[in-house]
Amino acid sequence: MFTIAVDVMGGDLGPRVAFKACKKILKSQPDLSLILTLTADVEPDARLYLSRYQNRIDFLVCDSFISMEDPPAQVLRRGKTSTMAMAVQQVQQGAAQGVISVGNTGALMVLSRSMLGTLDGISRPALATEIPTRDKPLLMLDLGANLASSADQLCEFARLGAAWSRTHGVSTPKVGLLNIGQEPCKGTEEVQRAGQQLHTSMAPYYVGFREGDSIYSGELDVLACDGFSGNVALKTSEGLAGWVAIELSRVFDRSRWSWLLRPLWAGLFKGVLRRFTSASYAGALLLGVNGLVVKTHGKSDDVAFYAAMKYLIDQLRVVDLNLLRAELVRLKPDSCH
Amino acid sequence: MFTIAVDVMGGDLGPRVAFKACKKILKSQPDLSLILTLTADVEPDARLYLSRYQNRIDFLVCDSFISMEDPPAQVLRRGKTSTMAMAVQQVQQGAAQGVISVGNTGALMVLSRSMLGTLDGISRPALATEIPTRDKPLLMLDLGANLASSADQLCEFARLGAAWSRTHGVSTPKVGLLNIGQEPCKGTEEVQRAGQQLHTSMAPYYVGFREGDSIYSGELDVLACDGFSGNVALKTSEGLAGWVAIELSRVFDRSRWSWLLRPLWAGLFKGVLRRFTSASYAGALLLGVNGLVVKTHGKSDDVAFYAAMKYLIDQLRVVDLNLLRAELVRLKPDSCH
Repeated sequence: MFTIAVDVMGGDLGPRVAFKACKKILKSQPDLSLILTLTADVEPDARLYLSRYQNRIDFLVCDSFISMEDPPAQVLRRGKTSTMAMAVQQVQQGAAQGVISVGNTGALMVLSRSMLGTLDGISRPALATEIPTRDKPLLMLDLGANLASSADQLCEFARLGAAWSRTHGVSTPKVGLLNIGQEPCKGTEEVQRAGQQLHTSMAPYYVGFREGDSIYSGELDVLACDGFSGNVALKTSEGLAGWVAIELSRVFDRSRWSWLLRPLWAGLFKGVLRRFTSASYAGALLLGVNGLVVKTHGKSDDVAFYAAMKYLIDQLRVVDLNLLRAELVRLKPDSCH
Repeated sequence: MFTIAVDVMGGDLGPRVAFKACKKILKSQPDLSLILTLTADVEPDARLYLSRYQNRIDFLVCDSFISMEDPPAQVLRRGKTSTMAMAVQQVQQGAAQGVISVGNTGALMVLSRSMLGTLDGISRPALATEIPTRDKPLLMLDLGANLASSADQLCEFARLGAAWSRTHGVSTPKVGLLNIGQEPCKGTEEVQRAGQQLHTSMAPYYVGFREGDSIYSGELDVLACDGFSGNVALKTSEGLAGWVAIELSRVFDRSRWSWLLRPLWAGLFKGVLRRFTSASYAGALLLGVNGLVVKTHGKSDDVAFYAAMKYLIDQLRVVDLNLLRAELVRLKPDSCH
């Protein structure tokens, strides 16, 4: 029995995408209730489209919404009555257990941090997602909640990732730090300092610098990075996976054996490539705040939006924020040496 | 009739990799001569292994080589008689038309910049490579020659890329700037300032911010970025392409039709995936210095080393540094508005 708050505004494809996803998830999850935050102009469409489930939805009409163009810095001054802020407020007030938004990432970070507060020892939350790799999923963070990260923040991301990993049953998570070389002399000053700190403070888990090709090798459980390069790595992967899928399908169609291979293609190859592009469909978690916040891609269609809602619900069933808090305390630099 | 200088030291797999590549390229390019810079301990092996081509090789024995662990900052003080410096010197003195190295990227940048000098209007060279995409190759720079880049440097990379593209026959190259969102408010301060500058100074070519997924879309001819995220994008792509190849091959082998599909797999799918991983095999150019400098991956085997040498020779046949200088002058901010 969960209630989640859904900010339906601010996505590239408009709110209809969210309505479709809401209808589908309400159908598949009979014990779920939703609080939809939206503006008055789209309310009639939402009520009509979701009329069958009206007893499981609260419609919260707000006076504005935050667009992709709004600078996150202005959000705290002008966005407090927006659909995004009102959705986060539902978690803050305990009316919802989690919140999902398709809108402006920076704004969601700023609002969540200010309204929900951060976990003890964490100064800035990070956007995190589980990426499929050769052997096991890799939790990668930050993916763009922050632009540039100090050494201390990079260490926080690593600690947050390790704690999260441990609450998900990985007793000794292997944690790497993204860099442009594995040697200790490589990288920016901040990355080098973070590496030195992690060697002392997270000795049992920290394995050192790793380059971009390590993301998919299956070696790591957690990869900490600054938000800019994390975002670049994720988006680059999405672009490459999409192109591989198109290209292989084209080559296949041109083959004179295509009539024979069609069932195999459909059953096997598409299945594999779906795994590679799945990172773009599931949502990303805003880790480090007091509450479960999921951000879905601005370009999300209804399938992606639904997948992100499903991911939030899966996390609600598994995640114990108190356990995460306890792991963070255990991993605090002071208590490590 | 070309002579290229080859620094065979400093690669992860040892100098034998370079010797093998040299033998193969001397066999396939009858009008090519080489100057090999190496240390005394590996000279006998090199002379023996390449004895058949001794009249087309100069062996230049040096007292030291630069390792991957050497901080680039110390190279100018202590590395002036290293194999890398002596190889670059061959271009500086006109004894060779191009130089290739498998060693420390930062050191190669520092030495090339100091010994060859930069092109007019370019303060720092950038590592660049052509990446295969959906429609046409994309010249991406910087890929790790610099760690952090100022707005002015990002603009220089964009200008350098556009000039290079024009010397390669693209009359109106489309140039993007890598960012974590397309909206003008997105990204770090430096990226935002660079975007504003490029809108004014490179109006006919500059198309705006692009995210990581645009790398493979085929829209762009040039993508400028800071060296850290460029390196992450390239290495991430290599890792993902490698995993896709393994995974598809595994799925294919498990299929009960594999006996039937084997020729198709070999002929078509491998051909496609080779294109995706080719970025890791060709070398990268150090663009912006007065001379042709190619860096090959530290992990290069003999196949990759050979491909990078072949790439350097191809560039030698095409590139006219005077034309590149003229294009750079034409694209200078002052002469644009």
